[in-house]
Amino acid sequence: MTPMLNPRSVAILGASDNPDKIGGRPIRFMREFGYEGAIYPVNPGREVVQGLTCYASLSDLPEAPEAVIVAVAGDNVVAAVEESARLGVKLCVIMASGFGETGPEGKAIEAGMRDTARAAGMRLIGPNTQGIANFGSGAILSFSTMFIETPPLDGPIAAISQSGAMSVVPYGLLRDKGIGLRYVNATGNDSDVSAPEMVLEVLEDPEIRLVLLYLESLSDPTMLARAAIRAQERGVPIIALKSGASEVGKRAAASHTGAIATSDRVVDAFCRKYGIWRANGMLDLVAAAEMYLHGWKPTDDRLAIISNSGAVCVMAADAADREGLSISQLAPETEAELTRVLPAFASPRNPVDITAALLSDGGLFSKVLPACGSDPAVDLLLVGLPITGQGYDYPRFARDTGAFLRESGKPVIVSNAQAKVREVFRAEGVPAFTTEDEAVAAISQFVRHQRMMEQASSTPFHALPVPDGARAVVRDEAASLDLLEARGMPMPRRALCRDVGEAQALLAQAPGGIVLKACSEKVPHKSEHGLVAVGLTTEDEVAAAYATIRERMQAMELGDAPLLAAEMVKGRHEVLVGGHRDPQFGPVVVIGDGGIAVEAMPDNVLLLPPFSDADVARAVEDLRIAPLFKGIRGQAPLDLAAVTRAAQSVAALLCDPAANIASVEVNPLMVSEDGAWALDALIEVYE
Amino acid sequence: MTPMLNPRSVAILGASDNPDKIGGRPIRFMREFGYEGAIYPVNPGREVVQGLTCYASLSDLPEAPEAVIVAVAGDNVVAAVEESARLGVKLCVIMASGFGETGPEGKAIEAGMRDTARAAGMRLIGPNTQGIANFGSGAILSFSTMFIETPPLDGPIAAISQSGAMSVVPYGLLRDKGIGLRYVNATGNDSDVSAPEMVLEVLEDPEIRLVLLYLESLSDPTMLARAAIRAQERGVPIIALKSGASEVGKRAAASHTGAIATSDRVVDAFCRKYGIWRANGMLDLVAAAEMYLHGWKPTDDRLAIISNSGAVCVMAADAADREGLSISQLAPETEAELTRVLPAFASPRNPVDITAALLSDGGLFSKVLPACGSDPAVDLLLVGLPITGQGYDYPRFARDTGAFLRESGKPVIVSNAQAKVREVFRAEGVPAFTTEDEAVAAISQFVRHQRMMEQASSTPFHALPVPDGARAVVRDEAASLDLLEARGMPMPRRALCRDVGEAQALLAQAPGGIVLKACSEKVPHKSEHGLVAVGLTTEDEVAAAYATIRERMQAMELGDAPLLAAEMVKGRHEVLVGGHRDPQFGPVVVIGDGGIAVEAMPDNVLLLPPFSDADVARAVEDLRIAPLFKGIRGQAPLDLAAVTRAAQSVAALLCDPAANIASVEVNPLMVSEDGAWALDALIEVYE
Repeated sequence: MTPMLNPRSVAILGASDNPDKIGGRPIRFMREFGYEGAIYPVNPGREVVQGLTCYASLSDLPEAPEAVIVAVAGDNVVAAVEESARLGVKLCVIMASGFGETGPEGKAIEAGMRDTARAAGMRLIGPNTQGIANFGSGAILSFSTMFIETPPLDGPIAAISQSGAMSVVPYGLLRDKGIGLRYVNATGNDSDVSAPEMVLEVLEDPEIRLVLLYLESLSDPTMLARAAIRAQERGVPIIALKSGASEVGKRAAASHTGAIATSDRVVDAFCRKYGIWRANGMLDLVAAAEMYLHGWKPTDDRLAIISNSGAVCVMAADAADREGLSISQLAPETEAELTRVLPAFASPRNPVDITAALLSDGGLFSKVLPACGSDPAVDLLLVGLPITGQGYDYPRFARDTGAFLRESGKPVIVSNAQAKVREVFRAEGVPAFTTEDEAVAAISQFVRHQRMMEQASSTPFHALPVPDGARAVVRDEAASLDLLEARGMPMPRRALCRDVGEAQALLAQAPGGIVLKACSEKVPHKSEHGLVAVGLTTEDEVAAAYATIRERMQAMELGDAPLLAAEMVKGRHEVLVGGHRDPQFGPVVVIGDGGIAVEAMPDNVLLLPPFSDADVARAVEDLRIAPLFKGIRGQAPLDLAAVTRAAQSVAALLCDPAANIASVEVNPLMVSEDGAWALDALIEVYE
Repeated sequence: MTPMLNPRSVAILGASDNPDKIGGRPIRFMREFGYEGAIYPVNPGREVVQGLTCYASLSDLPEAPEAVIVAVAGDNVVAAVEESARLGVKLCVIMASGFGETGPEGKAIEAGMRDTARAAGMRLIGPNTQGIANFGSGAILSFSTMFIETPPLDGPIAAISQSGAMSVVPYGLLRDKGIGLRYVNATGNDSDVSAPEMVLEVLEDPEIRLVLLYLESLSDPTMLARAAIRAQERGVPIIALKSGASEVGKRAAASHTGAIATSDRVVDAFCRKYGIWRANGMLDLVAAAEMYLHGWKPTDDRLAIISNSGAVCVMAADAADREGLSISQLAPETEAELTRVLPAFASPRNPVDITAALLSDGGLFSKVLPACGSDPAVDLLLVGLPITGQGYDYPRFARDTGAFLRESGKPVIVSNAQAKVREVFRAEGVPAFTTEDEAVAAISQFVRHQRMMEQASSTPFHALPVPDGARAVVRDEAASLDLLEARGMPMPRRALCRDVGEAQALLAQAPGGIVLKACSEKVPHKSEHGLVAVGLTTEDEVAAAYATIRERMQAMELGDAPLLAAEMVKGRHEVLVGGHRDPQFGPVVVIGDGGIAVEAMPDNVLLLPPFSDADVARAVEDLRIAPLFKGIRGQAPLDLAAVTRAAQSVAALLCDPAANIASVEVNPLMVSEDGAWALDALIEVYE
């Protein structure tokens, strides 16, 4: 274990005899929570601190400590970092605030401390951090009062956060459910070790089985991708709450931590790519945590519901439907077995209503659970017990359910509105939720996250930076189409025409007629200016249209650039493919519904290159227009392969550093059942 | 107060000396929870029950009791009801099961008991009920063990349910939050008093300020509409959880209570019409309950967020955005005042980050809350305190917040992850939530429900029943259009043509050309059979098309019915208007996106007649295509008035008992910026 996870000795600069002060709490915590390493209080004003020998300075210690808690402030912080680096300390945790979060001057001081540390092979946590805590070893380099409010319990979960409060809120919520955590680590200003790097770090602890991450800024997505790829290798799920999704939230985040405003949908695409489940808020961050601690690997999402309440059967089935889970269709043998063990008025179908028979037969779960669990159509089981008052032998229910869980290895969870009953089930290892809808939502998240992790990428994304001081300039349609065609974008036969003859030559090869349009980066909305003529099927029509457009171009002083002629194609639906270069994430590709309503009625998905054709197929399934790719009302499906080819060509272009592309928009990509054609394109290039 | 809400005397048939038996618990509860009326145990086998004089039979009592709890079973139940009716009892609560839920025979017995009761002016609750409870008076005619698990507290909430378990689960969840309830009433099989009628009943208690309702079947929507209208008059919100939304849920509900399968979207439309907030599950049913108990009437939805944590500011802003709340833009004077009372590093903008200054100035809320609350742009306030450990004077925060709440009358709520802190705030009357996202969701529900109640209808819906044994038959297009036109449906000029001359005569009046089509109820998809010709602009074209269609009709043996000719119209978007007669709710109107994807990519809303034009406008705002009615990319808005007229014409037709309509579908209703035209219609009529 590294000094960051578990230092063998800890010095506290600014140690306080008062166990309730910032310089006193870490000492109190380490002693209360069983830290076995050496604790060295450092304070020139005292000889003893909380019963421990206190030293005047770091250099007075009997050894160089592995870790130093810097609980002093102001200029003393920089001096402490320098002395620590000199002495061979491995880790400094800087609690003081007043650095990077205050402005450029503070940022510069931070950078200086980081350089000092790195030169000496030392790492920094903070500044402006509550600190880090390891409840496995008792190494609590943190001053959070939360560990007084709610006593810790070691467990296989790591909570990582930039914000101190948001590292301990999940701790509190999980501890209230009786769930333990090993690491509660706040990285503060991320001056050296960032929150994503801390994720990478805790993954080196083989006992960690779940990482909860709170982020306000995603300043280092490359590191988070590395951490996520490592987590995949280890089979450890990451659930992340990235705040600042809304405009006001972004502004508040910027004023709070100077966070860079990130397009929230790009964050979504990033998380999806790397198998990170994205939580919507604090409750959501911890809601399903219990599900992840068993190493369950359900192969499908078919749920069996077992309850003594008909109402719970109904509501759990409703919740499964809302959450997109399937309901197991039990085999005849299973139903026969249930009929045998249940009273006549109970239902042997799923949802299985075992009725109040549970009052007279407290051992019912030892029969019903194995009967359902051995059915190959059952991947997940929910035991819904709304309330279990007088007469219900719930300790026995819990024992039977726990025994089934251990023997079958199948995911089984319980819902019950009484805290004392949930505790008894949890003591048997059974994840317990207050209501059936909460339970079903948790199991659904778990299964969907499982699937997302199976499909996750282990390839770094193309982190092409936006060139410094670059200005994006528009390329005209013909140039844009050429750039795309070179990367495989499907498009109609076309020609740049300097005279009418060239247009008529294209017509000769285009039995369906041609379209003729002006081609100028100065006029994005050509139709509105009468600069487009469609459906030209005769030489005369071509000649007339050519003349008209030329005339209008002259009137608009657009010069005598060649006109663009293209073969008319027959498609059925207008699709959008495009993309842009994000300042943090590099190239981002968009696929969606096309036409004029792309902004007013948006329906699109984002992908970070590189992506596979299967990734495109899965992403398209999330579109509202997904049914068109299956075929509706007897129509043939739209050509997904052609759309995929179009998306890959946009990705190839965006990812080519030489092409230096700022953005691409192909709208419409006209799609039929056997082809797709870029009918218009607009590319911006950095200059 | 009626005997149903608060009987002055209660007899228990089948009284048990054991306070933990069904016949014993109500006696125990009434004595423990302070019932002051007379309690008459009745049991021929005992002289004393739980220390009370026990009687051999109802007729031996010193008076006719107002209420009788029937805790006997089988044939004794019918006898007990008959004797009660004879003696002038006002209310029988029948706990025994084995009646309507077992089949037709049980249903018949139930009906007999109901008739006996009604003839005598007596009301029945149940059978198959846990009973009803009034914690204001201690009249607990219930055997629920939940009142042992969690002690009751009187409060302004009524929980009504058919299912016993689902009456006490909300009780348990609310009591765990320290919130009291007056009524916990289960109506069981609803043989006489249904759950909706029970809602109507509890609304007669002036202290009730919130009704929570769980329903598995909506067998009596007319009564629920009456109750909802009464609730509007009283200003009492109703939150309803109607389960059985999913297909499997419906099946489970049918096997549980014999519930009639109701289209869930019609239930949604019903609830919206009458201002009933529909909850998605049990947690959702109680999640925002606290918000409703203050009588707050915010005029708008602008939220001010105040927190000592920058992260909470960000997450609360994100949550507000997700929930569709606005963020108050504070006035310069407010920001100036905040700047005055806050330290320099705090943010006076909304979200207001008051920072750790709260540690040194525990009175900060007494300054910050009035400053924000007096700003006219602030309708709602959230105080987000993620955790308040050592050093935070949270009792003072709670007092200051409570004082502000009482003085300002503005909605103010708090979020805090520690149960003990929430309790202190609740004791000051401040609704308290675990996290900021939970708090924001609750305040959003409250505000949206408030608005929904303001817009609610106080008119009964058209409960036209589906005629017994009726068969729906299709009318042809021409007949369908005629029926609709008579009610005001906008449509193009058209003619039924027995010969080509009549079609050519229409062409003479139609400068844009005409469409000609076969008109037969036998061929719903005419285009696919070449029976439609569009864009006919010359007499010759009309003649040729007429001949071709006639020929094909002959080949298909469709007879020589007249062809339908209609003027070509220029519209921009295909809309769907239609409707059907629901077996429970009568006429239901649908408005949505039209074309061929109405099933594959549905986008529509339902309305129950009668509805106002404003109701249509609000419903259309929920459509994905809503932006088209505002105008996108410089296009003129689609003609909402014309679509409204179309919807009203469908409503008028469906609601006409003489027309006897089963269903209507107009698709497309072609809509432009100044008109709408029914281009196809299909009506089914009951025969």
